[in-house]
Amino acid sequence: MRDTKRRMVNSAVVLLRERGVSGVTVEAVLEHSGAPRGSVYHHFPGGRAEMLSSAVLLAGDFISGLLEKVAVEGSPQAAFDQFVGFWKQAMVASDHLAGCPIVAVAVDTREELADVVRETFDRWREALRDSMVRHGFPADTARRRATLLISAVEGAIILCRAQRDSGPLDDVRQELGPLLEL
Amino acid sequence: MRDTKRRMVNSAVVLLRERGVSGVTVEAVLEHSGAPRGSVYHHFPGGRAEMLSSAVLLAGDFISGLLEKVAVEGSPQAAFDQFVGFWKQAMVASDHLAGCPIVAVAVDTREELADVVRETFDRWREALRDSMVRHGFPADTARRRATLLISAVEGAIILCRAQRDSGPLDDVRQELGPLLEL
Repeated sequence: MRDTKRRMVNSAVVLLRERGVSGVTVEAVLEHSGAPRGSVYHHFPGGRAEMLSSAVLLAGDFISGLLEKVAVEGSPQAAFDQFVGFWKQAMVASDHLAGCPIVAVAVDTREELADVVRETFDRWREALRDSMVRHGFPADTARRRATLLISAVEGAIILCRAQRDSGPLDDVRQELGPLLEL
Repeated sequence: MRDTKRRMVNSAVVLLRERGVSGVTVEAVLEHSGAPRGSVYHHFPGGRAEMLSSAVLLAGDFISGLLEKVAVEGSPQAAFDQFVGFWKQAMVASDHLAGCPIVAVAVDTREELADVVRETFDRWREALRDSMVRHGFPADTARRRATLLISAVEGAIILCRAQRDSGPLDDVRQELGPLLEL
Protein backbone atom coordinates (compact mmCIF):
# COMPACT_ATOMS: atom_id res chain seq x y z
CA MET A 1 0.00 0.00 0.00
CA ARG A 2 1.33 3.45 -0.88
CA ASP A 3 2.27 5.70 2.03
CA THR A 4 -0.53 8.25 1.64
CA LYS A 5 -3.11 5.54 1.21
CA ARG A 6 -1.85 3.67 4.26
CA ARG A 7 -1.94 6.85 6.32
CA MET A 8 -5.52 7.51 5.25
CA VAL A 9 -6.63 3.97 6.08
CA ASN A 10 -4.95 4.19 9.48
CA SER A 11 -6.81 7.44 10.11
CA ALA A 12 -10.07 5.77 9.11
CA VAL A 13 -9.39 3.00 11.66
CA VAL A 14 -8.75 5.54 14.43
CA LEU A 15 -11.91 7.46 13.56
CA LEU A 16 -13.92 4.25 13.42
CA ARG A 17 -12.66 3.21 16.85
CA GLU A 18 -13.27 6.60 18.43
CA ARG A 19 -16.43 7.81 16.70
CA GLY A 20 -18.01 4.80 15.04
CA VAL A 21 -19.13 4.40 11.43
CA SER A 22 -20.70 7.85 11.29
CA GLY A 23 -17.34 9.40 12.21
CA VAL A 24 -15.57 8.03 9.13
CA THR A 25 -16.24 10.81 6.64
CA VAL A 26 -14.02 11.95 3.78
CA GLU A 27 -13.52 15.29 5.56
CA ALA A 28 -12.51 13.68 8.84
CA VAL A 29 -10.07 11.27 7.17
CA LEU A 30 -8.44 14.14 5.24
CA GLU A 31 -8.12 16.22 8.37
CA HIS A 32 -6.79 13.38 10.53
CA SER A 33 -4.29 12.08 7.97
CA GLY A 34 -3.23 15.42 6.53
CA ALA A 35 -3.56 13.87 3.05
CA PRO A 36 -4.28 16.19 0.11
CA ARG A 37 -7.90 16.25 -1.08
CA GLY A 38 -6.94 14.91 -4.51
CA SER A 39 -5.78 11.67 -2.93
CA VAL A 40 -9.32 10.61 -2.01
CA TYR A 41 -10.54 9.61 -5.44
CA HIS A 42 -7.08 8.56 -6.53
CA HIS A 43 -6.69 6.02 -3.73
CA PHE A 44 -10.39 5.40 -3.00
CA PRO A 45 -12.38 5.56 -6.24
CA GLY A 46 -15.35 4.23 -4.23
CA GLY A 47 -15.13 7.23 -1.88
CA ARG A 48 -16.23 7.01 1.72
CA ALA A 49 -17.63 3.45 1.42
CA GLU A 50 -14.27 2.23 0.15
CA MET A 51 -12.39 4.01 2.96
CA LEU A 52 -14.63 2.34 5.48
CA SER A 53 -14.29 -1.14 4.04
CA SER A 54 -10.50 -0.71 3.69
CA ALA A 55 -10.31 0.26 7.36
CA VAL A 56 -12.33 -2.74 8.54
CA LEU A 57 -10.39 -5.14 6.35
CA LEU A 58 -7.01 -3.78 7.43
CA ALA A 59 -7.83 -3.74 11.14
CA GLY A 60 -9.54 -7.14 11.11
CA ASP A 61 -6.76 -8.76 9.14
CA PHE A 62 -4.05 -7.24 11.34
CA ILE A 63 -5.60 -8.56 14.55
CA SER A 64 -6.42 -11.93 12.99
CA GLY A 65 -2.79 -12.24 11.88
CA LEU A 66 -1.44 -11.51 15.37
CA LEU A 67 -3.81 -13.95 16.99
CA GLU A 68 -3.34 -16.73 14.45
CA LYS A 69 0.45 -16.52 14.71
CA VAL A 70 0.60 -16.91 18.49
CA ALA A 71 -2.28 -19.42 18.51
CA VAL A 72 -0.29 -21.70 16.20
CA GLU A 73 3.05 -21.24 17.94
CA GLY A 74 2.01 -21.14 21.57
CA SER A 75 -0.52 -22.42 24.09
CA PRO A 76 -4.17 -21.30 24.27
CA GLN A 77 -3.18 -19.23 27.32
CA ALA A 78 -0.46 -17.49 25.32
CA ALA A 79 -2.88 -16.75 22.49
CA PHE A 80 -5.53 -15.35 24.80
CA ASP A 81 -2.95 -13.35 26.72
CA GLN A 82 -1.68 -11.84 23.50
CA PHE A 83 -5.22 -10.97 22.40
CA VAL A 84 -6.16 -9.32 25.71
CA GLY A 85 -2.74 -7.64 25.90
CA PHE A 86 -3.18 -6.19 22.44
CA TRP A 87 -6.52 -4.65 23.39
CA LYS A 88 -5.33 -3.40 26.73
CA GLN A 89 -2.42 -1.63 25.10
CA ALA A 90 -4.74 -0.19 22.43
CA MET A 91 -7.16 1.06 25.09
CA VAL A 92 -4.46 2.63 27.26
CA ALA A 93 -2.85 4.25 24.21
CA SER A 94 -6.14 5.97 23.35
CA ASP A 95 -6.81 6.99 26.97
CA HIS A 96 -9.74 4.53 26.78
CA LEU A 97 -11.51 6.61 24.18
CA ALA A 98 -11.24 4.13 21.30
CA GLY A 99 -13.02 0.78 21.02
CA CYS A 100 -12.87 -2.18 18.63
CA PRO A 101 -13.28 -1.17 14.98
CA ILE A 102 -15.02 -4.45 14.13
CA VAL A 103 -17.63 -3.87 16.84
CA ALA A 104 -18.11 -0.31 15.59
CA VAL A 105 -19.18 -1.76 12.24
CA ALA A 106 -21.08 -4.69 13.79
CA VAL A 107 -23.42 -2.36 15.71
CA ASP A 108 -24.03 -0.34 12.58
CA THR A 109 -26.44 -1.58 9.95
CA ARG A 110 -24.24 -1.44 6.90
CA GLU A 111 -25.33 -4.52 5.00
CA GLU A 112 -22.30 -4.46 2.70
CA LEU A 113 -19.89 -4.91 5.63
CA ALA A 114 -21.81 -7.69 7.41
CA ASP A 115 -19.73 -10.43 5.78
CA VAL A 116 -16.36 -9.02 6.76
CA VAL A 117 -17.55 -8.51 10.37
CA ARG A 118 -18.80 -12.09 10.63
CA GLU A 119 -15.70 -13.51 8.97
CA THR A 120 -13.38 -11.53 11.24
CA PHE A 121 -15.10 -12.73 14.42
CA ASP A 122 -15.01 -16.26 12.99
CA ARG A 123 -11.27 -16.08 12.33
CA TRP A 124 -10.61 -14.96 15.91
CA ARG A 125 -12.78 -17.71 17.35
CA GLU A 126 -11.29 -20.36 15.11
CA ALA A 127 -7.73 -19.38 16.03
CA LEU A 128 -8.51 -19.83 19.73
CA ARG A 129 -10.62 -22.94 19.19
CA ASP A 130 -7.96 -24.67 17.08
CA SER A 131 -5.30 -23.85 19.65
CA MET A 132 -7.41 -25.43 22.40
CA VAL A 133 -8.09 -28.50 20.29
CA ARG A 134 -4.38 -28.91 19.57
CA HIS A 135 -3.77 -28.80 23.31
CA GLY A 136 -6.27 -31.52 24.07
CA PHE A 137 -9.60 -29.79 24.67
CA PRO A 138 -12.69 -31.62 23.38
CA ALA A 139 -13.86 -29.99 20.13
CA ASP A 140 -17.22 -28.86 21.50
CA THR A 141 -15.77 -27.30 24.62
CA ALA A 142 -13.08 -25.58 22.56
CA ARG A 143 -15.68 -24.10 20.21
CA ARG A 144 -17.91 -22.78 23.00
CA ARG A 145 -14.99 -21.52 25.04
CA ALA A 146 -13.50 -19.63 22.10
CA THR A 147 -16.84 -17.89 21.64
CA LEU A 148 -16.84 -16.99 25.33
CA LEU A 149 -13.31 -15.56 25.14
CA ILE A 150 -14.05 -13.32 22.16
CA SER A 151 -17.42 -12.24 23.59
CA ALA A 152 -15.94 -11.41 26.98
CA VAL A 153 -13.06 -9.39 25.53
CA GLU A 154 -15.33 -7.43 23.19
CA GLY A 155 -17.75 -6.72 26.02
CA ALA A 156 -14.92 -5.73 28.36
CA ILE A 157 -13.62 -3.26 25.77
CA ILE A 158 -17.04 -1.59 25.81
CA LEU A 159 -17.04 -1.44 29.63
CA CYS A 160 -13.45 -0.09 29.67
CA ARG A 161 -14.50 2.69 27.36
CA ALA A 162 -17.59 3.46 29.43
CA GLN A 163 -15.63 3.75 32.66
CA ARG A 164 -12.45 5.11 31.09
CA ASP A 165 -10.09 2.53 32.61
CA SER A 166 -8.75 -0.95 31.84
CA GLY A 167 -10.22 -2.70 34.87
CA PRO A 168 -12.77 -4.81 32.97
CA LEU A 169 -10.11 -6.25 30.62
CA ASP A 170 -7.93 -7.13 33.63
CA ASP A 171 -10.90 -8.76 35.38
CA VAL A 172 -11.82 -10.79 32.31
CA ARG A 173 -8.24 -11.93 31.81
CA GLN A 174 -7.94 -13.06 35.41
CA GLU A 175 -11.31 -14.82 35.49
CA LEU A 176 -10.90 -16.64 32.19
CA GLY A 177 -7.28 -17.74 32.62
CA PRO A 178 -8.20 -20.93 34.51
CA LEU A 179 -10.61 -21.99 31.73
CA LEU A 180 -7.63 -22.30 29.40
CA GLU A 181 -5.93 -24.98 31.50
CA LEU A 182 -7.13 -28.51 31.01
CA MET B 1 -45.87 8.17 31.37
CA ARG B 2 -48.69 9.10 28.99
CA ASP B 3 -49.53 6.57 26.29
CA THR B 4 -48.27 8.53 23.28
CA LYS B 5 -45.07 9.42 25.05
CA ARG B 6 -44.50 5.82 26.10
CA ARG B 7 -45.09 4.62 22.55
CA MET B 8 -42.57 7.14 21.24
CA VAL B 9 -39.94 6.16 23.80
CA ASN B 10 -40.47 2.48 23.01
CA SER B 11 -39.97 3.28 19.33
CA ALA B 12 -36.77 5.16 20.18
CA VAL B 13 -35.50 2.07 22.03
CA VAL B 14 -36.24 -0.19 19.06
CA LEU B 15 -34.52 2.22 16.66
CA LEU B 16 -31.54 2.53 18.99
CA ARG B 17 -31.19 -1.24 19.17
CA GLU B 18 -31.57 -1.77 15.43
CA ARG B 19 -29.82 1.27 13.96
CA GLY B 20 -27.74 2.81 16.74
CA VAL B 21 -27.69 6.42 17.93
CA SER B 22 -27.74 7.83 14.41
CA GLY B 23 -30.99 5.96 13.73
CA VAL B 24 -32.89 7.75 16.48
CA THR B 25 -34.17 10.78 14.61
CA VAL B 26 -37.41 12.69 15.17
CA GLU B 27 -38.65 11.55 11.76
CA ALA B 28 -37.89 7.89 12.43
CA VAL B 29 -39.55 7.96 15.87
CA LEU B 30 -42.68 9.58 14.42
CA GLU B 31 -42.84 7.05 11.63
CA HIS B 32 -42.21 4.05 13.86
CA SER B 33 -44.62 5.08 16.63
CA GLY B 34 -47.32 6.60 14.43
CA ALA B 35 -47.46 9.56 16.84
CA PRO B 36 -48.63 12.93 15.51
CA ARG B 37 -45.87 15.43 14.77
CA GLY B 38 -47.19 17.89 17.37
CA SER B 39 -46.43 15.38 20.11
CA VAL B 40 -42.67 15.74 19.68
CA TYR B 41 -42.23 19.12 21.33
CA HIS B 42 -45.14 18.51 23.66
CA HIS B 43 -43.62 15.35 25.15
CA PHE B 44 -39.97 16.06 24.36
CA PRO B 45 -39.28 19.79 24.65
CA GLY B 46 -35.57 18.92 24.31
CA GLY B 47 -36.26 17.31 20.91
CA ARG B 48 -34.13 14.47 19.61
CA ALA B 49 -31.60 14.61 22.48
CA GLU B 50 -34.39 14.16 25.00
CA MET B 51 -35.90 11.27 23.04
CA LEU B 52 -32.54 9.56 23.04
CA SER B 53 -31.89 10.05 26.75
CA SER B 54 -35.43 8.96 27.62
CA ALA B 55 -34.90 5.77 25.61
CA VAL B 56 -31.59 4.95 27.30
CA LEU B 57 -32.97 5.66 30.76
CA LEU B 58 -36.12 3.62 30.20
CA ALA B 59 -34.32 0.62 28.71
CA GLY B 60 -31.48 0.68 31.25
CA ASP B 61 -33.84 1.02 34.18
CA PHE B 62 -36.13 -1.72 32.92
CA ILE B 63 -33.31 -4.25 32.59
CA SER B 64 -31.73 -3.18 35.89
CA GLY B 65 -35.06 -3.67 37.62
CA LEU B 66 -35.49 -7.19 36.22
CA LEU B 67 -31.97 -8.19 37.16
CA GLU B 68 -32.05 -6.64 40.64
CA LYS B 69 -35.33 -8.34 41.48
CA VAL B 70 -34.17 -11.85 40.65
CA ALA B 71 -30.68 -11.20 42.06
CA VAL B 72 -32.18 -10.37 45.43
CA GLU B 73 -34.73 -13.17 45.46
CA GLY B 74 -32.78 -15.99 43.87
CA SER B 75 -29.34 -17.49 43.43
CA PRO B 76 -26.56 -16.00 41.28
CA GLN B 77 -27.34 -18.74 38.74
CA ALA B 78 -30.99 -17.68 38.64
CA ALA B 79 -30.03 -14.02 38.18
CA PHE B 80 -27.59 -14.79 35.37
CA ASP B 81 -30.04 -17.14 33.72
CA GLN B 82 -32.73 -14.47 33.80
CA PHE B 83 -30.33 -11.91 32.31
CA VAL B 84 -29.19 -14.19 29.48
CA GLY B 85 -32.75 -15.39 28.94
CA PHE B 86 -34.00 -11.83 28.63
CA TRP B 87 -31.43 -11.07 25.94
CA LYS B 88 -31.95 -14.29 24.09
CA GLN B 89 -35.68 -13.65 23.90
CA ALA B 90 -35.03 -10.05 22.78
CA MET B 91 -32.63 -11.24 20.08
CA VAL B 92 -34.95 -13.95 18.78
CA ALA B 93 -37.92 -11.56 18.79
CA SER B 94 -36.01 -9.14 16.55
CA ASP B 95 -34.75 -11.93 14.25
CA HIS B 96 -31.29 -11.09 15.65
CA LEU B 97 -31.36 -7.65 14.09
CA ALA B 98 -31.45 -5.62 17.33
CA GLY B 99 -28.67 -5.33 19.90
CA CYS B 100 -28.33 -3.82 23.37
CA PRO B 101 -29.47 -0.18 23.52
CA ILE B 102 -26.91 0.67 26.21
CA VAL B 103 -24.08 -0.62 24.03
CA ALA B 104 -25.45 1.37 21.10
CA VAL B 105 -24.94 4.52 23.17
CA ALA B 106 -21.66 3.34 24.72
CA VAL B 107 -19.99 2.99 21.32
CA ASP B 108 -21.20 6.43 20.32
CA THR B 109 -19.41 9.51 21.58
CA ARG B 110 -22.31 11.38 23.11
CA GLU B 111 -20.67 12.93 26.16
CA GLU B 112 -24.02 13.79 27.77
CA LEU B 113 -25.05 10.14 27.93
CA ALA B 114 -21.76 8.79 29.28
CA ASP B 115 -22.95 8.89 32.89
CA VAL B 116 -26.13 6.94 32.31
CA VAL B 117 -24.22 4.29 30.33
CA ARG B 118 -21.64 3.86 33.08
CA GLU B 119 -24.25 3.83 35.82
CA THR B 120 -26.37 1.25 34.00
CA PHE B 121 -23.46 -1.15 33.52
CA ASP B 122 -22.56 -0.57 37.19
CA ARG B 123 -26.06 -1.45 38.36
CA TRP B 124 -26.00 -4.70 36.39
CA ARG B 125 -22.59 -5.64 37.73
CA GLU B 126 -23.51 -4.75 41.29
CA ALA B 127 -26.71 -6.80 41.18
CA LEU B 128 -24.74 -9.89 40.14
CA ARG B 129 -21.83 -9.16 42.49
CA ASP B 130 -24.08 -8.68 45.51
CA SER B 131 -25.95 -11.87 44.72
CA MET B 132 -22.66 -13.80 44.62
CA VAL B 133 -21.47 -12.22 47.87
CA ARG B 134 -24.75 -13.13 49.58
CA HIS B 135 -24.21 -16.71 48.44
CA GLY B 136 -20.73 -16.94 49.89
CA PHE B 137 -18.35 -15.81 47.13
CA PRO B 138 -15.33 -13.77 48.27
CA ALA B 139 -15.96 -10.09 47.52
CA ASP B 140 -13.06 -9.74 45.04
CA THR B 141 -14.01 -12.83 43.07
CA ALA B 142 -17.64 -11.72 42.99
CA ARG B 143 -16.68 -8.30 41.67
CA ARG B 144 -14.44 -9.66 38.90
CA ARG B 145 -16.86 -12.41 37.97
CA ALA B 146 -19.79 -10.00 37.70
CA THR B 147 -17.72 -7.92 35.28
CA LEU B 148 -16.97 -11.05 33.28
CA LEU B 149 -20.66 -12.01 33.11
CA ILE B 150 -21.81 -8.62 31.85
CA SER B 151 -18.89 -8.35 29.41
CA ALA B 152 -19.49 -11.83 28.01
CA VAL B 153 -23.23 -11.29 27.53
CA GLU B 154 -22.74 -7.91 25.85
CA GLY B 155 -20.07 -9.34 23.57
CA ALA B 156 -22.22 -12.37 22.77
CA ILE B 157 -25.11 -10.11 21.79
CA ILE B 158 -22.81 -8.46 19.24
CA LEU B 159 -21.72 -11.86 17.87
CA CYS B 160 -25.35 -13.06 17.73
CA ARG B 161 -26.24 -10.05 15.68
CA ALA B 162 -23.25 -10.52 13.38
CA GLN B 163 -24.09 -14.14 12.64
CA ARG B 164 -27.88 -13.73 12.89
CA ASP B 165 -28.41 -16.54 15.43
CA SER B 166 -28.43 -17.04 19.20
CA GLY B 167 -25.54 -19.51 19.34
CA PRO B 168 -23.07 -17.20 21.09
CA LEU B 169 -25.51 -16.44 23.95
CA ASP B 170 -26.14 -20.17 24.41
CA ASP B 171 -22.40 -20.87 24.40
CA VAL B 172 -21.70 -18.13 26.95
CA ARG B 173 -24.50 -19.33 29.22
CA GLN B 174 -23.23 -22.89 29.13
CA GLU B 175 -19.58 -21.96 29.69
CA LEU B 176 -20.20 -19.51 32.52
CA GLY B 177 -22.78 -21.55 34.44
CA PRO B 178 -20.14 -23.49 36.42
CA LEU B 179 -18.47 -20.24 37.54
CA LEU B 180 -21.62 -19.39 39.46
CA GLU B 181 -21.41 -22.45 41.69
CA LEU B 182 -19.12 -22.22 44.67
